[in-house]
Amino acid sequence: MKHQIFGKNLTNLPWQPPQDDSPVWRYAENPIIKRNPVKGVARIFNSAVVPFGDGFAGVFRGEKINGIPKLYTGKSDDGIHWSISDEEICFLDENGKQFENFYSYDPRVIPIEDKFYVVWCADFYGPTLAIAETEDFKHFERYNHPYLPFNRNGVLFPRKINGKYYMLSRPSDGGHTSFGDIFISESPDLKYWGNHKHVMSRSDIWWQSLKIGAGAVPIETDVGWLIFYHGVVNTCNGYVYSMGGAILDIDQPDKVLYRSENYFLTPEEEYEERGFVPNVVFPCAALSDAKTGRIAIYYGAADSYVALAFTDVDRIVEYIMRHNRLR
Amino acid sequence: MKHQIFGKNLTNLPWQPPQDDSPVWRYAENPIIKRNPVKGVARIFNSAVVPFGDGFAGVFRGEKINGIPKLYTGKSDDGIHWSISDEEICFLDENGKQFENFYSYDPRVIPIEDKFYVVWCADFYGPTLAIAETEDFKHFERYNHPYLPFNRNGVLFPRKINGKYYMLSRPSDGGHTSFGDIFISESPDLKYWGNHKHVMSRSDIWWQSLKIGAGAVPIETDVGWLIFYHGVVNTCNGYVYSMGGAILDIDQPDKVLYRSENYFLTPEEEYEERGFVPNVVFPCAALSDAKTGRIAIYYGAADSYVALAFTDVDRIVEYIMRHNRLR
Amino acid sequence: MKHQIFGKNLTNLPWQPPQDDSPVWRYAENPIIKRNPVKGVARIFNSAVVPFGDGFAGVFRGEKINGIPKLYTGKSDDGIHWSISDEEICFLDENGKQFENFYSYDPRVIPIEDKFYVVWCADFYGPTLAIAETEDFKHFERYNHPYLPFNRNGVLFPRKINGKYYMLSRPSDGGHTSFGDIFISESPDLKYWGNHKHVMSRSDIWWQSLKIGAGAVPIETDVGWLIFYHGVVNTCNGYVYSMGGAILDIDQPDKVLYRSENYFLTPEEEYEERGFVPNVVFPCAALSDAKTGRIAIYYGAADSYVALAFTDVDRIVEYIMRHNRLR
Amino acid sequence: MKHQIFGKNLTNLPWQPPQDDSPVWRYAENPIIKRNPVKGVARIFNSAVVPFGDGFAGVFRGEKINGIPKLYTGKSDDGIHWSISDEEICFLDENGKQFENFYSYDPRVIPIEDKFYVVWCADFYGPTLAIAETEDFKHFERYNHPYLPFNRNGVLFPRKINGKYYMLSRPSDGGHTSFGDIFISESPDLKYWGNHKHVMSRSDIWWQSLKIGAGAVPIETDVGWLIFYHGVVNTCNGYVYSMGGAILDIDQPDKVLYRSENYFLTPEEEYEERGFVPNVVFPCAALSDAKTGRIAIYYGAADSYVALAFTDVDRIVEYIMRHNRLR
Amino acid sequence: MKHQIFGKNLTNLPWQPPQDDSPVWRYAENPIIKRNPVKGVARIFNSAVVPFGDGFAGVFRGEKINGIPKLYTGKSDDGIHWSISDEEICFLDENGKQFENFYSYDPRVIPIEDKFYVVWCADFYGPTLAIAETEDFKHFERYNHPYLPFNRNGVLFPRKINGKYYMLSRPSDGGHTSFGDIFISESPDLKYWGNHKHVMSRSDIWWQSLKIGAGAVPIETDVGWLIFYHGVVNTCNGYVYSMGGAILDIDQPDKVLYRSENYFLTPEEEYEERGFVPNVVFPCAALSDAKTGRIAIYYGAADSYVALAFTDVDRIVEYIMRHNRLR
Amino acid sequence: MKHQIFGKNLTNLPWQPPQDDSPVWRYAENPIIKRNPVKGVARIFNSAVVPFGDGFAGVFRGEKINGIPKLYTGKSDDGIHWSISDEEICFLDENGKQFENFYSYDPRVIPIEDKFYVVWCADFYGPTLAIAETEDFKHFERYNHPYLPFNRNGVLFPRKINGKYYMLSRPSDGGHTSFGDIFISESPDLKYWGNHKHVMSRSDIWWQSLKIGAGAVPIETDVGWLIFYHGVVNTCNGYVYSMGGAILDIDQPDKVLYRSENYFLTPEEEYEERGFVPNVVFPCAALSDAKTGRIAIYYGAADSYVALAFTDVDRIVEYIMRHNRLR
Repeated sequence: MKHQIFGKNLTNLPWQPPQDDSPVWRYAENPIIKRNPVKGVARIFNSAVVPFGDGFAGVFRGEKINGIPKLYTGKSDDGIHWSISDEEICFLDENGKQFENFYSYDPRVIPIEDKFYVVWCADFYGPTLAIAETEDFKHFERYNHPYLPFNRNGVLFPRKINGKYYMLSRPSDGGHTSFGDIFISESPDLKYWGNHKHVMSRSDIWWQSLKIGAGAVPIETDVGWLIFYHGVVNTCNGYVYSMGGAILDIDQPDKVLYRSENYFLTPEEEYEERGFVPNVVFPCAALSDAKTGRIAIYYGAADSYVALAFTDVDRIVEYIMRHNRLR
Repeated sequence: MKHQIFGKNLTNLPWQPPQDDSPVWRYAENPIIKRNPVKGVARIFNSAVVPFGDGFAGVFRGEKINGIPKLYTGKSDDGIHWSISDEEICFLDENGKQFENFYSYDPRVIPIEDKFYVVWCADFYGPTLAIAETEDFKHFERYNHPYLPFNRNGVLFPRKINGKYYMLSRPSDGGHTSFGDIFISESPDLKYWGNHKHVMSRSDIWWQSLKIGAGAVPIETDVGWLIFYHGVVNTCNGYVYSMGGAILDIDQPDKVLYRSENYFLTPEEEYEERGFVPNVVFPCAALSDAKTGRIAIYYGAADSYVALAFTDVDRIVEYIMRHNRLR
Repeated sequence: MKHQIFGKNLTNLPWQPPQDDSPVWRYAENPIIKRNPVKGVARIFNSAVVPFGDGFAGVFRGEKINGIPKLYTGKSDDGIHWSISDEEICFLDENGKQFENFYSYDPRVIPIEDKFYVVWCADFYGPTLAIAETEDFKHFERYNHPYLPFNRNGVLFPRKINGKYYMLSRPSDGGHTSFGDIFISESPDLKYWGNHKHVMSRSDIWWQSLKIGAGAVPIETDVGWLIFYHGVVNTCNGYVYSMGGAILDIDQPDKVLYRSENYFLTPEEEYEERGFVPNVVFPCAALSDAKTGRIAIYYGAADSYVALAFTDVDRIVEYIMRHNRLR
Repeated sequence: MKHQIFGKNLTNLPWQPPQDDSPVWRYAENPIIKRNPVKGVARIFNSAVVPFGDGFAGVFRGEKINGIPKLYTGKSDDGIHWSISDEEICFLDENGKQFENFYSYDPRVIPIEDKFYVVWCADFYGPTLAIAETEDFKHFERYNHPYLPFNRNGVLFPRKINGKYYMLSRPSDGGHTSFGDIFISESPDLKYWGNHKHVMSRSDIWWQSLKIGAGAVPIETDVGWLIFYHGVVNTCNGYVYSMGGAILDIDQPDKVLYRSENYFLTPEEEYEERGFVPNVVFPCAALSDAKTGRIAIYYGAADSYVALAFTDVDRIVEYIMRHNRLR
Repeated sequence: MKHQIFGKNLTNLPWQPPQDDSPVWRYAENPIIKRNPVKGVARIFNSAVVPFGDGFAGVFRGEKINGIPKLYTGKSDDGIHWSISDEEICFLDENGKQFENFYSYDPRVIPIEDKFYVVWCADFYGPTLAIAETEDFKHFERYNHPYLPFNRNGVLFPRKINGKYYMLSRPSDGGHTSFGDIFISESPDLKYWGNHKHVMSRSDIWWQSLKIGAGAVPIETDVGWLIFYHGVVNTCNGYVYSMGGAILDIDQPDKVLYRSENYFLTPEEEYEERGFVPNVVFPCAALSDAKTGRIAIYYGAADSYVALAFTDVDRIVEYIMRHNRLR
Repeated sequence: MKHQIFGKNLTNLPWQPPQDDSPVWRYAENPIIKRNPVKGVARIFNSAVVPFGDGFAGVFRGEKINGIPKLYTGKSDDGIHWSISDEEICFLDENGKQFENFYSYDPRVIPIEDKFYVVWCADFYGPTLAIAETEDFKHFERYNHPYLPFNRNGVLFPRKINGKYYMLSRPSDGGHTSFGDIFISESPDLKYWGNHKHVMSRSDIWWQSLKIGAGAVPIETDVGWLIFYHGVVNTCNGYVYSMGGAILDIDQPDKVLYRSENYFLTPEEEYEERGFVPNVVFPCAALSDAKTGRIAIYYGAADSYVALAFTDVDRIVEYIMRHNRLR
C-alpha cells in the first residue's frame, strides 16, 4: 500500500474486489437491507455500523409504517446480513429518565476510546442534532442537544484532536433544506460546543451545488482525515444525492487539503433510482481495515434500502488528489 | 365473522386470499388496467366501480393523449377485466342540454336507493366537485356544482342518514394542493348543501401529514362507517400517496371513532412507483360482500394504472381499532 | 333624478356635496373612526352600518391589542360619530349555546324583511364565512357556516329574488389570498346553499387584476343591482386595494350588466396609504336614500380606520355605464 | 407518398417499420447511448446528429462526472452506433482565441449551405444561446451570443428564407423555467438579430401547458416546415416532457399552419421514466430522407440516454392536420 | 470646471444650488408632477424629458385610472412646469399602421443626431423593450422590438460609437423581477441587435444587491460616459429603489471605469416613501449643460410622482471616483 | 413601589411621566436619533445603550450610505442626545488581530461584573451571532461565534445564574426569516455553549404569530427576569414588528412565568410607520433605576430611527401578570 489507514485491523469487513478503475464500486448483491425488514418498519436506510465484538453492530433508521422514523439497533456477523431489533432504541438521560423524541433519523455511530457515540437528527422545536453514548448497544445515555435548531448530518471525529472533541455538521432549516455547507465545532466534554469554523461550501460543481453534508466517520490516513460526504443537485424533478469525498488536515480538521471534483457514486441502479425518495445515494458509515486498506461504505438508497460499496485507501486517496478542486 | 358489513351480498367480487397478516394485500396480477387501454386514452387510473346487473360497471378517469382527463364508462363481468368505452360520458342537465367541462377527473360512483351517483372534480373557474345521476350508465343527468371552488375528493354516503344526504369532501386550492382536511356536508336534496362539519385533519403522522382525502364509498359495518382514504407526505422529491382508513359513527358521520395510525398500502411496486406521477396509491372505490365480509379495493397507481387490493371486514376493522390514533 | 333607488327614504344619511366630477368623493373629516377607539381595541376598520331606529347601528371589526379581530356593535345618531361597545358580540346558536370563533372579521350587515343578518369571516379549520341574525343588535343567533373553507367577502342581497336568498362570495385560500373571483349562491332558507354561479372574474385591468371581492350590500336601482366592490393589484411592495363598482341584473343577479373599467377610489390620502396595512380602500357598507338618490359608502382604510365617501345614484350609474368594460 | 420532403436523399438513415398506427414509434433497441458511455462522462442525452460524409456526425451533450454538461463530437456509420470523442469540443472565436463556457448543453446542429451550425445553451451571466460553425466537426468557430440571457432551445432553419436566417428560441429564466413560448428571430448575418415574432404559446392542452421548446431542425415539406418540439406539464411530482409537432408556413415561418393537439410520444418506457430526471422525452434532431419520406428522430430520455424514434412524412403530416388545434 | 460635459449648452435647464456637500440634492419644490395631473390619469412618474425647441419636451408614463400605464407627451418652458397631453401617444409602424400595446411604461427619450428615440417597456407575450422615433413629439414611428422578452430599462447612447448604435438594458422576468444586471448590445441600424456584452452586476453592496437598471441617457464627459442608474434592495417589507452612478469607457462602453459604492439618493422624503409603491427613487432622464456642467435629474418617486434633483459634473464625477468600487 | 428592580440606582435615566394608563408610553420628542446622523451613515436604529461613567454609552447599528450595516460607539450625558463616532468599531481577537465582518447589526450591550459584552449579528457563511467584550467602549476584544449560523437576536443575562452564563437567541435562516422562537443556552466561559433549552414559541396571538426575538437585556425583579421582546405578524403588505414582554424564572430562566397577551407598543407614529422598513418597533435596550423603578426602553423605529419609551416596574409587571397568556 502506498497510503495507510491509522486504525484497527478489521480483516472481516465485507469485501468484493473491483471490476474496473472506478473510485468506488457497488456490492453485487445490493441492497443488503430490503423493504419491510422488521415488523412495523417499512424501510431501513441511512444507517451506521461499527465493528463490535467479533462482528458488527449498528444503529439503523427505521421508517415505521406510520411514516415516522425511529432508531433501531442491529447485529451482524459479516456486516452484510443484519438482524435488526424490532424495538426502537430507548434513550435515557443522565438521571435515567427517558429522553425521547417524536422522530429520530440519519444516525451515525462513532467509536471513541471505549465508547460508542450516536449522533442523529431529532426534533427540538425544529430538527437538530442529538447525541448519546453506549457501550453495549443496549443501554444508551443521551445528552442534551449539542446545537440549537436547525442542524443535520452531525459526525464526530473518532478521536480527540489536541485534547478536544470535534464534530462536523450542516446547519439546515426546518424543511427540505435547499442550501447547506459543512461546519466544524469543538468541545472539551461533548456537552458545551464552540470555536465553530467553516469547512466546505456547496460548490459551483453541479452534483454538489445545492447542499453537502458529512456522511461516514472520518478515517485517519497518512494524508489526512478521509471523509465521504453527500452532495445534492436540484433538478426540475427533485433532488439527486451523490457521494463524494475529501481529505481534511489531521491537526486542523477545518482545513480541506483535497476535495474530489467528481462524485464517487451517483444513482444509477434500480434500488437507488426508485423508492420513497428516488435518486438518493446517502453514505452514513464506513468500515476500514488498517491492514489491507480496504474500506466498506454503507449508504442509504432512495430512502428505501441499505446498500454497500467498496474502495481501498490507495485508490480513493489517489483519486481525490488527482481530481482535486477545492471549491 | 366477528364483524359485519351491512349491505348486499356480492359473492362474485374479485378476490384473492392473503399471504400474510397485512391489513390489505395486492392482487397478484396488478395492474388490471394498463397504459393506452383505449384508442385516444393514454392512461386510466383513479376510477370507481360498482356492482351492476350480473356484473360490474364503472366510471373511469381516462387521461387523453392530449393530457386532458375525461370520464368514460366501463363494463366487466368479473370486476377485473374491463371493457372501457372509447366515447367520453356525455352529461346533460335537467333540461337535456349538454353540461360539459374542459376537464373531469377522479370519479366516485355511489349507489343510493335505485340510482347511481357520480361525484368527480371538474373545472368551474377553478377545480371543484360535480355531481350527476344515472340508472343505466348510458344516460347521465348532471346537477349544478354542490360546492364553490376549490374542492376535490367528494364521496357521498351510500344511504341517507336521518333523512339527509351526506358528502365527504376536501377543500383544496387551484393547483397541486399542499394542505387538506376531510369535511362533511349535509343536503336534503343533493342540490343545496349546508351544516358543514370538520371530520378529520391531516396529522403529525408523516404519511398523512400534508393532506388527506376520502377515497372509497363508506362501507356500513357494525362498528361504524368504514372509509378508505389517501394520505400524502411531501418529500424532497415530491408527494407520496398512501392508503389508510378510519371508522365513522353511523348516525353522526362527522365523528371519527377509530383511525389507523398506520397506512394500509404505500407505493412499493413498480406500477406504483413509476409512471406519470410516481409514488401514488389512490383508492377510489371498494366492493364489499356482506356474506363473506370480503372487500375489494380499487386504486389508481402512479396516475397511470388501475390496481386492485383486498381485505376483509374482520381483519381491517380489528387493525384500525388496534392501531387507533385519532389525530 | 334620472335613475332611481328602490328602497326606503333615508334623508338623515351622512352627506357632503361633491367638489368636482369624481364618481365618488371622500368625506372631508375622514377618518371617522381613529386608532385605539375603545379600550382594548387597537383599530376599527372594514365595518358595516345600517339604518336602525331613528339613527344607525353597525357591526365593527375591532382588532384587539393582541392582534386578534373580533366583532363589536356600535350606535350612532348621525352615521358619523359612533359609540362602539367595548364588549365583543356574543353569538349564540339556535339552542342558546355560545358559538364562538378564535377570530371574526370583515362583517357586512344586511337588512332583509324585519331582521338584520351579519355575514363575516371566521375560522372553521381555515377562514370561511359565518352568518347570524339579530333584531336588536344585542342578541345574535348564529347559524352554521354557509360554505366550506376557504371563503371571504360574503354579502347577502337585501331581499329574496324569485323566492330565494342570494349571497355573493369570494372563494379564497388560507393565507393572503393571491387570486379571487366573485361567485353567487342561492338558498331557500339561509342554511343550505347551492346553484352556485360565477359572477365576475378578476381582470386584465390592473387595479383589479389580482383579486376582487364584494363590498357593500347591493343597492336596488332601476338599472339593476348596484354593487361596490374592492379590486386588488400586486405591486413589488405589496397589495393595493381600490374600490370599483358594477351593476347586476335584477332577476338574474349572476349576470353583470355593466362594470366600471375605472376604480372609483384608490389610496391617496394619508389615512389610506399609511397604517397597519398601507394602501387599502375596502368598502363594506353603503347607506342610500331613495328620495334623493344619495349614497354614503363606508370603507376601511389601511386596515386602521373607518372612512366615508359619497356618491349619488345618477352620477355613479352613469359613470359605470359610460366606462363599461365587462372583462 | 402523398406528402413530400424537400431535401436530400438519405437512404441510409436508421429505420424500423411501424407496428401500429402510432404517429411516432420507438426504436426497438432503445436507448442507443447508455450510461457512462465515455471516460469521464456520466450521461449523454439531448444531442443532435446530421448526415456527414458517408455516415453521420453529431454534437452531444455529455454530463461529466462532476455534473457539468459539455459538448462532445461523435461519429457513426449507421446513425445508431456512435463513437463519441472523449475530449470536449474546443470553441475558438474569430481571432482563434478560445471562447469557453463553464457549461454547455442541449446542442442542435443545423446544416446550412456548406457549413454546419451548432446552437446550444451556455452561461453568459445566466443561461442563453450560443452559436458556432464548423465544416469538419473538428474546428469550431464561435460567434458572440445571438441573444441576451435568458434563452434556451434555439434552432436555426436549414436555409435562408427571403434572404434572411431564422431562429426559433424559447425565452426562459435562470432556473428550472416554469413558463415558455416559442419565438422566431431574423438575421442578415447570424450576428445581429431582430424582427422577433411570437410563434406558439404554451397551451391549455395539459401536456404542453407549462412550457414548450423547439426540438429538431425544421424539415421542409410540401405543406410547410415540419417541427418536432417538446411540451411540458407540471405534476405534483415534477415536470413531464413529451414530444409533439406543428407545421409552419414556408415563407412566413412565424405563422403556425397546423399544430397537433396530441403528443406523439410521452414517457412510458423504463429508460424514459427512470434516470437523472425521470419522465423526459426531449427531441433534439431529426434525419429525413426525401426519397422515402422516412424520418428518424433523436431524443434525450430522462436526461440519461439517447433514444431513437421513427415516423414518415405522410403519416406525421396527416396526423398533425387531422388533430389540428392551434392553441 | 475640472471636468467637462461634451454636449450642447443648455443654460435654461432647471437649477438650484446645493445646500451641503451631498453628491446629488433634491429640488426644494418637489414633486414637480403630482397625483391626478391629467383627466383619466392617476399618476405620472418614471418619465423622460429632453431639450426641445426653446424649451423642453418629454414622454411620460401615465398610469390611467384603470391602472394601465400608457405613454403621453408633455411640453414645458422651464422643465419644471409641464403641460401633459390628455391623449396617449399613437405609435405607427413604418407602413403607417397603428402599432399598439396593452401597456407601455418607463420611457426614456434619447436624442441622436436630428431625431428623438423613445425606448420603453411594452407587452410582447411578456414585457420587453420597444423603440420608436419622433422628430416633433407628435408623430411617432415605431420599429419592431429590439429584444425578445423579458427585458426592461433600455437606454440608448446619445450617439453612435465606432459607427454603431449601443443600448443598455436589463434582462428581466415576467413579474416583479428579483434579479438583474445591466448588459449592452450593438446595432448597425437600430433594428438588428447583437454583440451583447455584460456591463455591471448587481452587487454585494446592499442598496444595489437585488437588481440594477440603467436610468438616464449616458452623459459624455472627459472621463467617460456618466450614467445614473437605480439599484434595489429587498427588505422584509418590499423593495427599496435608490439612485447611484458609474462611468463607462467612451469607446468601449461595456467597460466600467468607476462605480460609486454609495447611492446618491435614497427614499427619505414623504413623496418618495409614501405612494402607490413606497420607497422608490427611479431616475429616467437627465438634462445637462456643457457650459456650466450643471445636471438636472428627473426621477420617479414612489410610482406616484415626478421629482427633480441636481448635481454638477465636477461634483458627481469626483464623488464616483472617490467612492469607486467596481463590484 | 409594589415591585422591585434588583440592580443599581440610575436616577439620571431619561424620563417622562405617563399621560394615561398605557403599559408603555412614547417619549414626546421621538425620534431621538434622526436620518443621516453621522457622515457616511444613512440611518441609526436597533441600538443598545448602558450607563457608563457619569452618563451613558452605547453601541449603534449604523446603516452606511452603501447600505451595509456596521457598529458604532456613542456617548451621551442624558441618554437622549447622543454623540456618535464616525468610525466603525474595530474588533480585535485575543491575539490583537482584526476580526471583522462584511456586515454587523442589531447589537445589544450587556454589563456583567466589570465588563461590557456586545452581542450582535454578523456574517459567518450566513448570519449568526457574534460576541465581544469591552471595558471602555474604545477597545473591543472579540471571541469566536457562540453559535453556528443561522441565528439572530442574542441577549446575554446581566449576571451568571448558578455559576453559568446564559444567552437568549433566535435560530433563524439566511433571509427575511419567516419563523422563530426564543431559545436559551448556557456557558461556563462565554466560549463553549450547550444545555440549550426552548423558552417561548411564536404564538397564535396574531401580533407575535410569525416570529419573536429577545430585545432588551433582562431586568431582574422580585417576580423574575423582565424581558422586552419583539413579535412579528405577516400582513399582505409585509411584516409588522411590535413590542411585548414576559417574565422568566430567576433561577431557571428557560421557564416563562408570565407573558403578556397584548403588545405594549405597535407602530402608530409617523416615524414608526414610514421609513426604510415601514411598521417596525424593535426594542434593543432598557435602562432601569432600582430606586424609582423607572424603565427607559430604546427601540429602533422603521429601520430608520432610534426612539425612546418609558414604563415603570410596578405598572409593567402588573400589566404582564394581568394579561398573562403563556402560549
